[in-house]
Amino acid sequence: MLDFWLEFASTYSYPATMRIRAAADKAGVNVRFRPFLLGPIFAAQGWTTSPFNLFAAKGRNMWRDLERICAELELPFQRPDPFPQNSLLAARIALVGFADTWGEEFCLAVYRAEFGEGERIDDPQSMRALLAGLGVDPEAVLTAAQSNAIKEKLRSQTAEAQELGIFGAPSFVTSDGELFWGNDRLETALAWAKHLS
Amino acid sequence: MLDFWLEFASTYSYPATMRIRAAADKAGVNVRFRPFLLGPIFAAQGWTTSPFNLFAAKGRNMWRDLERICAELELPFQRPDPFPQNSLLAARIALVGFADTWGEEFCLAVYRAEFGEGERIDDPQSMRALLAGLGVDPEAVLTAAQSNAIKEKLRSQTAEAQELGIFGAPSFVTSDGELFWGNDRLETALAWAKHLS
Repeated sequence: MLDFWLEFASTYSYPATMRIRAAADKAGVNVRFRPFLLGPIFAAQGWTTSPFNLFAAKGRNMWRDLERICAELELPFQRPDPFPQNSLLAARIALVGFADTWGEEFCLAVYRAEFGEGERIDDPQSMRALLAGLGVDPEAVLTAAQSNAIKEKLRSQTAEAQELGIFGAPSFVTSDGELFWGNDRLETALAWAKHLS
Repeated sequence: MLDFWLEFASTYSYPATMRIRAAADKAGVNVRFRPFLLGPIFAAQGWTTSPFNLFAAKGRNMWRDLERICAELELPFQRPDPFPQNSLLAARIALVGFADTWGEEFCLAVYRAEFGEGERIDDPQSMRALLAGLGVDPEAVLTAAQSNAIKEKLRSQTAEAQELGIFGAPSFVTSDGELFWGNDRLETALAWAKHLS
């Protein structure tokens, strides 16, 4: 079992999300998707936005690197504007989806819209369209996503991420607590998880 | 041709330096070692030490990640104390070595001492021992390393790195200006350089 910690605003979570299912199946490892928010974790170290905005040279390189990675994986790529997108609503909806059957499909749809098509994800209207595309009733889901239970679940999941030592996304955590950070570490994390099983 | 930008205080420059020659030979790509200093580049974005010290969770993960990478590569690993080491003297000596024939060998020796054996690299005495091990006259080299010509060369090489958009080490830059950051990007950078040749 491998926990896959993803944040919808995170750039490198896009390729990781698009390829993790096939890579995990190939490795014979179960994967659990764990959406969380990086905002509170960044804020705790004094960052008010993405480090890719705070540090310009790093940001320029990331966009180019992501473009190269997407080309290699034959994934469409468009830079969302503004960056980062506010990922709170999408993260709450994902938790509704994981309590049901469509959580993973929803994650794929969010990343595809955001980084594949450059669409906003902070807007209920765009979420409605994604949900309808999954054959889910958008209004019921949006209501559930704003429930106290879901809000609290996202808070506690984010607190758990922070306790695990997570400081960026995507991150992967094995059942023995080994933490791997970044899309580049997916294969190493899967090998570690496989070795434990 | 691939320019390999390395900084002696940089943790991930250790595995990159130990494996780049074999990887480049295998890819059929010429590599040029370009030592530089990250200090002035970090200072320009308001950092007074390594981001691995500034951001604790990131630092903890880096040390564990580096340990895993070294185990995989069967490289000895010890954490230098203090971290980061002051790399100014080693960088100047390396430039003397690259004007002669022993630059690359010296780089390997520095990283092996620093991250393989946990030795200090900021001390003329340890540099003397490394140089003697390479069959080079330590006193002549230490004198040359403190010459105005070498000091100025390191300053201009660091300024060039910054102009290229370099913000961390190791970095790799191809002849068409494509920048790749990190030990993980070595293979991609070599493939890019190969494609150009």
